[in-house]
Amino acid sequence: MSTHTPLTQCLAARKGIVTPQIAAVAEAEHRSEDFILERVADGRIVIPANIHHKNLKPVGIGRELTTKINANIGTSPLASCPEAEKRKLAQAIRYGADTVMDLSTGGDIDFIRSVIIEASTIPLGTVPIYEIVAKYGADSFDRETILKTIRSQAEQGVDYMTIHAGLLAKHIPAALKRKLGIVSRGGSLIARYMKEHDCENPFYTCFDDILQICLEHDVTLSLGDGLRPGCLADASDEAQFAELDTLGELVRRCRNTGVQAMVEGPGHIPYNEIEMNMKRERDVCGDAPFYILGPVVTDCAPGYDHITAAIGGTAGAFYGAAMLCYVTPMEHLGLPQDEDVRNGVIAFKLAAHAADIALGKPGARERDDAISDARALFDWEKQFDLALDPDRAREFRKRATEHAGNTMEHGSRFCTMCGKDFCSMRISADLKKE
Amino acid sequence: MSTHTPLTQCLAARKGIVTPQIAAVAEAEHRSEDFILERVADGRIVIPANIHHKNLKPVGIGRELTTKINANIGTSPLASCPEAEKRKLAQAIRYGADTVMDLSTGGDIDFIRSVIIEASTIPLGTVPIYEIVAKYGADSFDRETILKTIRSQAEQGVDYMTIHAGLLAKHIPAALKRKLGIVSRGGSLIARYMKEHDCENPFYTCFDDILQICLEHDVTLSLGDGLRPGCLADASDEAQFAELDTLGELVRRCRNTGVQAMVEGPGHIPYNEIEMNMKRERDVCGDAPFYILGPVVTDCAPGYDHITAAIGGTAGAFYGAAMLCYVTPMEHLGLPQDEDVRNGVIAFKLAAHAADIALGKPGARERDDAISDARALFDWEKQFDLALDPDRAREFRKRATEHAGNTMEHGSRFCTMCGKDFCSMRISADLKKE
Repeated sequence: MSTHTPLTQCLAARKGIVTPQIAAVAEAEHRSEDFILERVADGRIVIPANIHHKNLKPVGIGRELTTKINANIGTSPLASCPEAEKRKLAQAIRYGADTVMDLSTGGDIDFIRSVIIEASTIPLGTVPIYEIVAKYGADSFDRETILKTIRSQAEQGVDYMTIHAGLLAKHIPAALKRKLGIVSRGGSLIARYMKEHDCENPFYTCFDDILQICLEHDVTLSLGDGLRPGCLADASDEAQFAELDTLGELVRRCRNTGVQAMVEGPGHIPYNEIEMNMKRERDVCGDAPFYILGPVVTDCAPGYDHITAAIGGTAGAFYGAAMLCYVTPMEHLGLPQDEDVRNGVIAFKLAAHAADIALGKPGARERDDAISDARALFDWEKQFDLALDPDRAREFRKRATEHAGNTMEHGSRFCTMCGKDFCSMRISADLKKE
Repeated sequence: MSTHTPLTQCLAARKGIVTPQIAAVAEAEHRSEDFILERVADGRIVIPANIHHKNLKPVGIGRELTTKINANIGTSPLASCPEAEKRKLAQAIRYGADTVMDLSTGGDIDFIRSVIIEASTIPLGTVPIYEIVAKYGADSFDRETILKTIRSQAEQGVDYMTIHAGLLAKHIPAALKRKLGIVSRGGSLIARYMKEHDCENPFYTCFDDILQICLEHDVTLSLGDGLRPGCLADASDEAQFAELDTLGELVRRCRNTGVQAMVEGPGHIPYNEIEMNMKRERDVCGDAPFYILGPVVTDCAPGYDHITAAIGGTAGAFYGAAMLCYVTPMEHLGLPQDEDVRNGVIAFKLAAHAADIALGKPGARERDDAISDARALFDWEKQFDLALDPDRAREFRKRATEHAGNTMEHGSRFCTMCGKDFCSMRISADLKKE
């Protein structure tokens, strides 16, 4: 490492340096700087903050911090408008996403990413293999193409990158025995490449070179789970856990180098297996922040997978996940649009929050207590202000009121659910006064 | 009991009689008739089936059976159209509600109920105190009015009734110390009556008379939790558990008489306290079917409470609740309309289903495996048919396809999420074939 290479957050912490990012995370999380520093140093907390991402408000990700949520945006070959992606980014930030991933696979991917980085005050993640395939084709996973793509994204300011280096050639037979095989896009592309070229995973074989690029720009690695299960029948199987073991090895290599690392997790998991999955990652990967997708707890609710995944996400966060990747109502059906992003973000925001309350994280329940106080006082405006989605709460109350023929004053001490005479909140408030 | 009084399901089971209802439940649940009979006899399973409700398909409710969901419909003084209620009933049944409660408090309550009973093939529940207040006013909880109202509803064919007989005068002081006091409508009305008349809960003092009416028509009692917590700060408190102890006493009185009984439960409960709440009810109430409302796991998501409650409901069912009362997106804001009913029913259907899968209930995962097989084959029509809400799944895929400029054939082997070249399902299916 040249003397000009800046320190990653992890290396700085190991030298005892309280970076501005560590200080900001400590304040946001109601924790001491020492608490954050110690965990950034040993890898239990990551702060994805590429040195080139200038307008970034740092976010800490770790099991003991508030649970973070990520919103995926990005184009597909069938729908690729930069303005639409900017709108989705704004929706995601407005409704509370802590990080955003640009998963673009169509259109001018480079340009779209630059637009998103410039507009984003939250950490941005990418999956570089998508750019490789979109630009050079699915047969271009040579070392040079991989490294130049990762380097160019790192120089652009990408804060974290999903690299599917844990899927090894020896894992493929077990994965193909499954009901749904390999449902990760990156995973399936790499598996096909390995089979066609009879070779090891090229992201695995050039992992040390990838680490060097990450060191130079402080890119956090998000170790992708190319073998995450795609249905309940495939959950917690041999393929999934074999890859997890490799991810554990990669975490150790990241930590040895000073590169920050998270681990990605499932997927489709039955509700009763979520706790075991969270604990297994903690054991195998040295408590590296676990960044899970959902998990979805039933396969048969297309159109409502933001809910099936928020159910799994709450359990996941409660049992130790550090960040939840949102799932939108469009999951399994198509590319999400603006309202889908909003619905996905709020569903996951409330899931993360419910878990944080259950775990007694500092300050977590203050908002709930405040909104309940506002409810007791029939202070509708304050209730709306404290709601996770004030716009929707306002809109719904307005709709209900209009449906009831606008007979209610805006500030009425009741709602159309019960009307005045049946309002328990009124009666109860009156009884308290006596 | 006169010799002309028909036996309740419970009394019949105790005589070893396999009623048509018991036989139907056994078949629907993939259980033996003996399994059902034994539990109906001892009260761990109820089959709400009023002898006057002629077009009823019997439903069994108990911890070991598939988790049931209830949809609340009904008018309020501010919105009371019988046709609208019939539409809501149809929505609820179409999307999978197992029972429905008519909570009407406005308009011609008697007529609306008769319309609903006639149209309903699923068990119908009511809260008789609402009719008393709507017809006779909130100061009319004398024995005669209570019994005549319950009798008239029983004769009409109501399958189960919520009676708030567990809230005693001695519980009120603790309840009024709470942040939100008493949020149950029935509970607050009764508490006010007790305070104003300085008397015991009239539903408690005439409970034996109520049991006689229930015996005659086989009305199942749903023992209401008038003191359920209305916010996280009030959860699992002295008032809630004091009432639960009384509900346990009432369960024993129901069982001694041969009246079927369920117990109603919370409410707003932090995620980490759900397991304890479920186990406490089982202990205190002799494993009587626990019928819970949500529970809602955060107070600050108005507009999304079908999700906060589906999260709590999954945990509740997983830890032993027998039936979940749905919560709609309109909760805390106003009276639900058609689309709200649909969203609430599906959110709870998937929550119940996720818990049933996790508990390994017979046949629970078959639907998930079938839809996953259809996914692997890109059989979109079969996926839609197996979805909990086929209409929405079809509509969303159509929307995504149109958004992408209708470039896809309906039967395409990909979706707009990834497009053709990035479709992991295609790649994986191809790899399997090799």
